[in-house]
Amino acid sequence: MTETEQGSYVEPGEFKRDTNYITTRITADGRDGYPVEPGRYRLVAARACPWANRTLIVRRLLGLESAISLGLCGPTHDKLSWTFDLDPEGLDPVLRIPRLRDAYLARFPGYPRGITVPAVVDVPTGQVVTNDYAQMTLDFSLEWTAHHRAGAPQLYPEPLRAEIDEVNARVFREVNNGVYRCGFAGAQDAYDAAYDRLFTALDWLSERLAGQRYLVGDTITEADIRLFTTLVRFDPVYHGHFKCNRSKLTEMPVLWAYARDLFQTPGFGDTIDFTQIKDHYYKVHTDINPTQVVPKGPELSSWLSPHGREALGGRPFGNGTPPEPPVPGEKVPPEDGAR
Amino acid sequence: MTETEQGSYVEPGEFKRDTNYITTRITADGRDGYPVEPGRYRLVAARACPWANRTLIVRRLLGLESAISLGLCGPTHDKLSWTFDLDPEGLDPVLRIPRLRDAYLARFPGYPRGITVPAVVDVPTGQVVTNDYAQMTLDFSLEWTAHHRAGAPQLYPEPLRAEIDEVNARVFREVNNGVYRCGFAGAQDAYDAAYDRLFTALDWLSERLAGQRYLVGDTITEADIRLFTTLVRFDPVYHGHFKCNRSKLTEMPVLWAYARDLFQTPGFGDTIDFTQIKDHYYKVHTDINPTQVVPKGPELSSWLSPHGREALGGRPFGNGTPPEPPVPGEKVPPEDGAR
Repeated sequence: MTETEQGSYVEPGEFKRDTNYITTRITADGRDGYPVEPGRYRLVAARACPWANRTLIVRRLLGLESAISLGLCGPTHDKLSWTFDLDPEGLDPVLRIPRLRDAYLARFPGYPRGITVPAVVDVPTGQVVTNDYAQMTLDFSLEWTAHHRAGAPQLYPEPLRAEIDEVNARVFREVNNGVYRCGFAGAQDAYDAAYDRLFTALDWLSERLAGQRYLVGDTITEADIRLFTTLVRFDPVYHGHFKCNRSKLTEMPVLWAYARDLFQTPGFGDTIDFTQIKDHYYKVHTDINPTQVVPKGPELSSWLSPHGREALGGRPFGNGTPPEPPVPGEKVPPEDGAR
Repeated sequence: MTETEQGSYVEPGEFKRDTNYITTRITADGRDGYPVEPGRYRLVAARACPWANRTLIVRRLLGLESAISLGLCGPTHDKLSWTFDLDPEGLDPVLRIPRLRDAYLARFPGYPRGITVPAVVDVPTGQVVTNDYAQMTLDFSLEWTAHHRAGAPQLYPEPLRAEIDEVNARVFREVNNGVYRCGFAGAQDAYDAAYDRLFTALDWLSERLAGQRYLVGDTITEADIRLFTTLVRFDPVYHGHFKCNRSKLTEMPVLWAYARDLFQTPGFGDTIDFTQIKDHYYKVHTDINPTQVVPKGPELSSWLSPHGREALGGRPFGNGTPPEPPVPGEKVPPEDGAR
């Protein structure tokens, strides 16, 4: 996401997230004019962004790499938009545009809202179809089934949907967005309240996960993916930069073991680029980090240490199997991951 | 200290501490015109400041409370100077001035350098005698012996001075000042180098303290006091605010146990006001924390947990004894300490 996180301030200093997105959907029946069709769409993400990170994980777990191609924006961006500054000549090699903004404007000239990742672009027209990240991963699971890999897991299984939705709603409000509410608080009172809400929710999650391996049911679901993308950024960014500092993730034993378990599961840790994550937050948010200096810490090797969560049982992929390693060209450089 | 820490920037973005102080000394023989005399001088400190914190600890350990009175500035200050904003009417009750600056100007009209704590003021004239914090505590130890309490420890014992001086020099350069070099770095390269220097020194200290209870000899000395005042601020301030984030102090087992041992020793932890410490750094350094929001964390109760360092032997006060509890009027409010 971002465009300073597509949000605004409400009195007295509380950060409020703008939740207006382009809600066009790509569906099996093509009812919005965009039918599922392998090779037609390009997912544009950024490894830095927690909201985009969800799509990278789901695409990996479901094996949609060959059906939906991937464009990656660099970790920082200018006032106008995320850019393809990591690509040769600064152009996305498929869309041939320098800025993600160009794809938004191709669909809606004068598009007034935030230029955010993740976005799915219709390659033939170069137009953004959707940037509605919450629906996007559910549609990867439910609309793209014909193109899932053999052994793809059920990330949003019918019988668990109500419970997943309920957990997701609280995790979104209190955790995914809760860290931003701390970091972007413009006044002490707003921050104090945000901090209490965040850690209340993390205590609830610690309690819930103390005796069960995953958030809902006994397999990995959407709920785990959405929590993971915040937890993995907690110590490198949110603890210091956003002042979420009651404790580090490494000091919350249940959540730390849970996060490592997922990190070490194929499809999770292999999407994480800690260097890009830190660069993004510390360089883009000049209002809270004017020097743009990026901290060297924390040490990240402990992400690979044993977590012991297998003892709780659980079947990570249900009746499915883990995904293969990332395809060539989509590997995170070893020096940017946990080492 | 401060006046933005009485420092300046040298290319390329490295913070350089100005070490010009008023070096007049108060001595037993009065050779600088200021003889030791109980009741004559007032120590002006701030609980927030690590350099001033040294004087609070040494004064407590030596039992100089009745010989040298204490004025305390609040944790924040304006562009001009530290102020007595915690006192009734905003005036120091003895010196009857609102700003520490007034005592500097009384001695040197137009005083051009930083107005820093700690400072010792000659009460009859209202003039600052010295703000040379490094010499100040040594003089408390060596020049004020006639007024030490019964059982006062030897903090700078003759046979250990060379070793204490050597340790102090490295701790000052790499640790006391090293955290500032990280936090005030104006460029990534300068920060990266500062971070490496700091943690190299902390690793050296961990190694040195793994098998011995105190830094030099088997009793508490100046060397421990000077290291302690930085360690106690590490997790509340330096880890996040100054980006000293390879790990928290709580994640460096030897240093963490050593710091708790001292914290729990009378004369150390009872000088620590975590609320003032955090308020100072986060509110005064608007160049690195523009919102002035003060983090609620970290949790501090673990400062009181068992440290196990008694197993290493050592005689904290040598042939002396621990000091009595703080005198009335000099107690840190319980809600501002570790709880």
